[in-house]
Amino acid sequence: MKRKIKIISPIALAAIFLPAVVSADDQDIVEYREHIMKTLDEQSAAVGMILSTVVPGDNMAAHLQAIALTAQTALKSFEPKVLGGEARPEVWNNWADFSKRMNDFAKNTALVAAQAKGKRSDDPELGEAVVDALSCKSCHDAYRKEKK
Amino acid sequence: MKRKIKIISPIALAAIFLPAVVSADDQDIVEYREHIMKTLDEQSAAVGMILSTVVPGDNMAAHLQAIALTAQTALKSFEPKVLGGEARPEVWNNWADFSKRMNDFAKNTALVAAQAKGKRSDDPELGEAVVDALSCKSCHDAYRKEKK
Repeated sequence: MKRKIKIISPIALAAIFLPAVVSADDQDIVEYREHIMKTLDEQSAAVGMILSTVVPGDNMAAHLQAIALTAQTALKSFEPKVLGGEARPEVWNNWADFSKRMNDFAKNTALVAAQAKGKRSDDPELGEAVVDALSCKSCHDAYRKEKK
Repeated sequence: MKRKIKIISPIALAAIFLPAVVSADDQDIVEYREHIMKTLDEQSAAVGMILSTVVPGDNMAAHLQAIALTAQTALKSFEPKVLGGEARPEVWNNWADFSKRMNDFAKNTALVAAQAKGKRSDDPELGEAVVDALSCKSCHDAYRKEKK
């Protein structure tokens, strides 16, 4: 299934010197990280529904584990410096801050996933810890330009 | 954050006898299971990109673990018999078959997630096992009416 090695064409060479041009490979990089971020959206939304008690909470611990695992994959998907999608250029211009925040996110979600094991989903302490660990907004404000 | 207990109104009573009417609570049930199924979509797409070698494979094992965890939450989200979204009525009319398939899916994805640990993402045996475990199509053909 591996793509054929491509001979560098004049168009590809042009792309090297025109960083605004998005190549097919760059599209893949953007698409891949979007799959990861959308997973976090979907799972956080599921957790939010459990916290607001509109659906049963049996899956709480599993959702939090899935979030922790996905958080752990996210930073890697931003390592290639490829603009596009909803990522602001600040992701790469402030890489030290961005990667620290992503690593903290992975660490904090892993902690809360461990804390949730064997706990009821309506445990108030757990609820607070979950809300703290899933505080996506400050990072999104700094690093995401949401497409409407 | 808990919703107020509602007194059964004539409208709510009508809803009991008119299963086609979708209540706000029913919407929550549908939305919740959609968050789970969309997570499976996003994570399977990420795995597909790794298998076709268009993105690096470092996250392979974590994606497979996230899929296994999410698969494990999916059946529970279909337990309330609430029509709507992309679920065909066959989900509940053929519950024994549907739930067996969902349980098999959870079991098989857990096995392949375990198999992936410490393996390279381009290991051909792993690749085959992943494709087998993520054979979503036969279930979707029987139980999903995709909205375009």
